[in-house]
Amino acid sequence: MLPEAVLARAAAEMLDYEGSGQSVMEMSHRSGSYQAIIDGCAALLREVMGIPDSYEVLFLQGGASTQFAMVPLNLAVKSGAADFVITGQWAKKAYAEAGKLLGEGARAVASSADRTFSYIPALNREGFNPDADYFHICLNNTIYGTKFPILPDTGSVPLVADVSSCILSEPIDVSRFGMLYAGAQKNMGPAGLTVVIIRKDLIGDPRLGTPTMLSYKTHAENGSMYNTPPCYAIYICKLVLEWLRDEIGGLEKMKALNERKAGILYNFLDSSALFKGTVEKGSRSLMNIPFVTGNEELDAKFVKEAAAAGFINLKGHRSVGGMRASIYNAMPLEGVEKLADFMRAFETAN
Amino acid sequence: MLPEAVLARAAAEMLDYEGSGQSVMEMSHRSGSYQAIIDGCAALLREVMGIPDSYEVLFLQGGASTQFAMVPLNLAVKSGAADFVITGQWAKKAYAEAGKLLGEGARAVASSADRTFSYIPALNREGFNPDADYFHICLNNTIYGTKFPILPDTGSVPLVADVSSCILSEPIDVSRFGMLYAGAQKNMGPAGLTVVIIRKDLIGDPRLGTPTMLSYKTHAENGSMYNTPPCYAIYICKLVLEWLRDEIGGLEKMKALNERKAGILYNFLDSSALFKGTVEKGSRSLMNIPFVTGNEELDAKFVKEAAAAGFINLKGHRSVGGMRASIYNAMPLEGVEKLADFMRAFETAN
Repeated sequence: MLPEAVLARAAAEMLDYEGSGQSVMEMSHRSGSYQAIIDGCAALLREVMGIPDSYEVLFLQGGASTQFAMVPLNLAVKSGAADFVITGQWAKKAYAEAGKLLGEGARAVASSADRTFSYIPALNREGFNPDADYFHICLNNTIYGTKFPILPDTGSVPLVADVSSCILSEPIDVSRFGMLYAGAQKNMGPAGLTVVIIRKDLIGDPRLGTPTMLSYKTHAENGSMYNTPPCYAIYICKLVLEWLRDEIGGLEKMKALNERKAGILYNFLDSSALFKGTVEKGSRSLMNIPFVTGNEELDAKFVKEAAAAGFINLKGHRSVGGMRASIYNAMPLEGVEKLADFMRAFETAN
Repeated sequence: MLPEAVLARAAAEMLDYEGSGQSVMEMSHRSGSYQAIIDGCAALLREVMGIPDSYEVLFLQGGASTQFAMVPLNLAVKSGAADFVITGQWAKKAYAEAGKLLGEGARAVASSADRTFSYIPALNREGFNPDADYFHICLNNTIYGTKFPILPDTGSVPLVADVSSCILSEPIDVSRFGMLYAGAQKNMGPAGLTVVIIRKDLIGDPRLGTPTMLSYKTHAENGSMYNTPPCYAIYICKLVLEWLRDEIGGLEKMKALNERKAGILYNFLDSSALFKGTVEKGSRSLMNIPFVTGNEELDAKFVKEAAAAGFINLKGHRSVGGMRASIYNAMPLEGVEKLADFMRAFETAN
């Protein structure tokens, strides 16, 4: 979901961006007009997220799935070892891909697979590898609806996080991380753009045999313009960031709004006689809220009736079943209130 | 440049795609509505280009620069050797990247570097490696304005071509190739989409250590949906293909129109006392037409006056100097006529 104001502006500027007579889709990425867009997007992201100058912002392609390979290829260059916390599908994929490239260097230090990833496991620094080149987490787990309530203390080992489904939903203390990465398609803009925020001292020569396009150094040295970037997606991301800063009022305000939205659903789930949330209270996500009735047939009935009433995409992932409400930034408060009302009515009727 | 009709339709559908109440940018890539878009785009590309059923069509990310690595990683799996024809910057980059991954297995069989890539070198099959896993060319060379007038006869060695700057400009006999690839941003749609057309029997396990996202098999087995594809760029590509089929009338018609457009400029250059084309007649591109006055100051004056008159992006690449007119599919005949008129007037005045 994208803010309606962003879509309206994109439509209005489609044939003529700021009097240029061109669509942003047609601009040369080497033109001054486009340079202003990509620079503006990076500057806005730095401003909105409070990214320190010691970090580089990169606009890449290939999604988080490509980062699962780029992270080990670029960061696992000293000991060749990395620690992983397994909190869901994406964390598992990041671990598997690192294992493919690093062999036994990739190690899982904790997992919540035993209870279908319904919680964030407790972490003890004594179990971490102090010589690891990085420590990887998936900060918010889309499918299972969990979020790390506190960040692991990894000491001098750089903490790397996949933040695809929670970036821009609330403030993040970037200085706690060696690197953050996110596919843009949840809170930032359209699919096809990947944002990487990386501490500059971690950018160096990658492992031997790394393709040029999979090296952070390639992109950092060329201002994300080693080759043609996903120009239009970056432009939309810039519009989203302007909306977030100027209409919402920044990440503290966004967080307050997201907490209100999530609170409506969590409060309802906690008091409902029919529905219940599947995630431990201390591990709950602000963005993704999975729930069940406890009866598969009733779940299916709910998903069907909800879709007929205009609440789409409520079916949970096949590995969890049940339902999941994803309430990303652009979902308005009213949308969440209406969903809670609908659930209340369904409960009464069933 | 994109057809105005395509941009107008994208603007009109921005907030509500076919009554879905959603923008294509917001759709889940797993939804039925989006599946119809990506399937429709692939079917249209097959129809317009006459792609045989024995070929797979893949929608990827990362541009031709990522293909420079994916081609050797996926195709150089038997002898580990590949032949390259060096006809410009992009051909050189493809060769260098293969060299990085294959070492001495990557070999240049011919080059036109001796005369600033102003011609396509003559090729003799006797010089080709019959055991190569593939033979690579860049079919149209954007910067230097050359195009292979005939395809090299590589026997049973699969011919692989970068067709980024000529795809959809005229019919291509796909069956002559093992694989074609193209960044979409010249003739197909916006930047951020890469199209790969590959013979199905060439899709297999890649070289050891290849990242999952750089394996053609990964994407072929998942209908280009292993991860979230660049959904919006694929949608625009579908609109461009509809325009090409329904408004232009297909690739034979597109070719005739492109030949008329290029003919206007080449005829003028061949008869001009001031301007001259830089490319050998037998190697001329239909898409990119470089030219010079023979005087650098006069070149600079022309570029400046042309920009003031609304003809932008006419400066040649720094490695060639002079000027270059890129007349991709969406450039209308009138645009080319006006440019020729402007050149004629400049010649008279200077």
